[in-house]
Amino acid sequence: MDRYSLRCLSFSCLRNGAIIPAMKVSDLGEFGLIDRLTDVVRTGRDRPTGDSLILGIGDDTAAWRTNAATQLATIDSMVEGVHFSLATVSWEDVGWKSLAVNLSDIAAMGGLPEYALVSLAMPGDTEVDDVISLYRGMADLAERFDVAIVGGDTVSAPQVVVSVTVLGRADGSEDTILTRSAGRPGDVVAVTGSLGASAAGVEMLLGGLEFSSGTTAALRQACLRPCPRVAEGRLLVEHGVRAAIDVSDGLVSDLNHICRASGVSARVELDRVPVAAPVRDSFGDRALELALTGGEDFELLFTASAEFVKRVIAAAPCPVTAIGEILAEGDGRTVLVDGRGEPVTLAGTGWDHFGRARSQR
Amino acid sequence: MDRYSLRCLSFSCLRNGAIIPAMKVSDLGEFGLIDRLTDVVRTGRDRPTGDSLILGIGDDTAAWRTNAATQLATIDSMVEGVHFSLATVSWEDVGWKSLAVNLSDIAAMGGLPEYALVSLAMPGDTEVDDVISLYRGMADLAERFDVAIVGGDTVSAPQVVVSVTVLGRADGSEDTILTRSAGRPGDVVAVTGSLGASAAGVEMLLGGLEFSSGTTAALRQACLRPCPRVAEGRLLVEHGVRAAIDVSDGLVSDLNHICRASGVSARVELDRVPVAAPVRDSFGDRALELALTGGEDFELLFTASAEFVKRVIAAAPCPVTAIGEILAEGDGRTVLVDGRGEPVTLAGTGWDHFGRARSQR
Repeated sequence: MDRYSLRCLSFSCLRNGAIIPAMKVSDLGEFGLIDRLTDVVRTGRDRPTGDSLILGIGDDTAAWRTNAATQLATIDSMVEGVHFSLATVSWEDVGWKSLAVNLSDIAAMGGLPEYALVSLAMPGDTEVDDVISLYRGMADLAERFDVAIVGGDTVSAPQVVVSVTVLGRADGSEDTILTRSAGRPGDVVAVTGSLGASAAGVEMLLGGLEFSSGTTAALRQACLRPCPRVAEGRLLVEHGVRAAIDVSDGLVSDLNHICRASGVSARVELDRVPVAAPVRDSFGDRALELALTGGEDFELLFTASAEFVKRVIAAAPCPVTAIGEILAEGDGRTVLVDGRGEPVTLAGTGWDHFGRARSQR
Repeated sequence: MDRYSLRCLSFSCLRNGAIIPAMKVSDLGEFGLIDRLTDVVRTGRDRPTGDSLILGIGDDTAAWRTNAATQLATIDSMVEGVHFSLATVSWEDVGWKSLAVNLSDIAAMGGLPEYALVSLAMPGDTEVDDVISLYRGMADLAERFDVAIVGGDTVSAPQVVVSVTVLGRADGSEDTILTRSAGRPGDVVAVTGSLGASAAGVEMLLGGLEFSSGTTAALRQACLRPCPRVAEGRLLVEHGVRAAIDVSDGLVSDLNHICRASGVSARVELDRVPVAAPVRDSFGDRALELALTGGEDFELLFTASAEFVKRVIAAAPCPVTAIGEILAEGDGRTVLVDGRGEPVTLAGTGWDHFGRARSQR
């Protein structure tokens, strides 16, 4: 469904002067809904990598010809009332973000995202226009990264749950994947972009905090419309980096994942952590904590030799900051140090989906 | 986690004579839970097709080397209170079925399932043992079909939602996929196995109906532990069949999907529909309706020339029944005819996830 016909749909609420109730998913039925959604997503184009789609939405599975040697696959779900509230977030934003978190996983492998499948659970009285908006948000992001939404299902549920699977490829051999387990003692720890804006954005939305229009827009963008670092992930691979993760749980928590998988420890110099400017300007003493533990910044956190990191900094289209190093000794976690090299501790250092285990790990 | 340590876990409820409350997901935390689940699923084995797994659960994505030319991908979700009730169904059954419905989609393409990703949403007070049981049910089925569970995520939600993605391959060229759109006028319509037992099983469980132990076991098996027709799907491809769908929405509804995708109509002779024996014996007048509209039998419904169907019947390890034919003329749907060739109509003819659109389509 193109934008023109979407406009027509919204006009259909007022016809002959009478207000017509918006169409519900249960009015349209599962198959009618799938037809509408199929029109929103782009499929069928051959891919620059040489892949070609055989079947998109509408058969028992999607199918495509591929010449990929290494396949990447990831799945992530977002739950209404847990990961988002439709009181503060638009349906389009939900669609965008549910795909973005998965593209970010592919980016963290240095891969190229190619295909997405979407499972959408929702109440029967959800308005069809809202579901189309969700898919439009997803399709907008998919188009930017040349990702084809090729399949999915829709089911009834008490609240909205969006599960997205993204499939991608890594070029070349196994060695050109970025893993959590490739951190080595002596590596420099570095991160793309800046941190804290997503968590600050959530606090702003939930707490009704008011800032300048520029800050508000930046924080909204950070938490609702994160842009996965796909090109940067591929650049890391090209420049010899082998260890990376995307910052989804929070800087410290995600660096701990690398430590654990690599059997190393890490030291981060607090003074060097790139706190996002709007967070630094508007969140005072809490800015650093948000940058260290907030999560969902979807920046790439990576480790490599000083020489490789230097090359990445020179080549990257975005800021890249060296913030610490990988240590052989230590307790397998991240140590935060202040400007004098003294260890510092924070109360909570990461996001755990079941809430209680927010200690450093 | 192997069976031995699972046994130890369940003993931990009674220690020194005191009852220790069962461990909750929120006690263990997301990362501890993922560690436990990783132990339940089998990964890492090279595949007979020549694929080899590079990364299973535990990094940003799963990764594997592949030599597949045609990739298949499907996603399906099951929602507590909608698709299952934990009052009548075990956690293991939920795990089994959530994977089975996806394997059945791959079977309906004539493909070979290879990898699965699982997104599990659940309340924080879910017992860890229950989640492990769910994964064990999934892993049991996965092992039978040599499918590796290679990734997933766990999130908090008010009720359990299991979203499973399965990736598979089709051997050879595009022509060797079974699609919904390949039905041709003059084709014979045929179906594997028998129909109606899954829907009858649901009625039995929800209505507390009592039957002989044999009937009860057969109906439970049909609705809780369906066995996807993977080998049969591949056999269809080998014997020249090109049009198929799995019976998930119901025989008539699924045949209508083929009609719609192929631009044809169909006729089904009611006398030839293979009603499952326990349904025929125990559901009297309603048996035929359950077979036609019940859904979730996960048999393969296919169309092909009479000659090809004959070959399939001769070669198949399960019963295969010719039940009708594909017509060029007609309204693009399935016509049911009685023993005298007279059209018959039924009130409801299929399962729609949003409930209202159960008319023939």
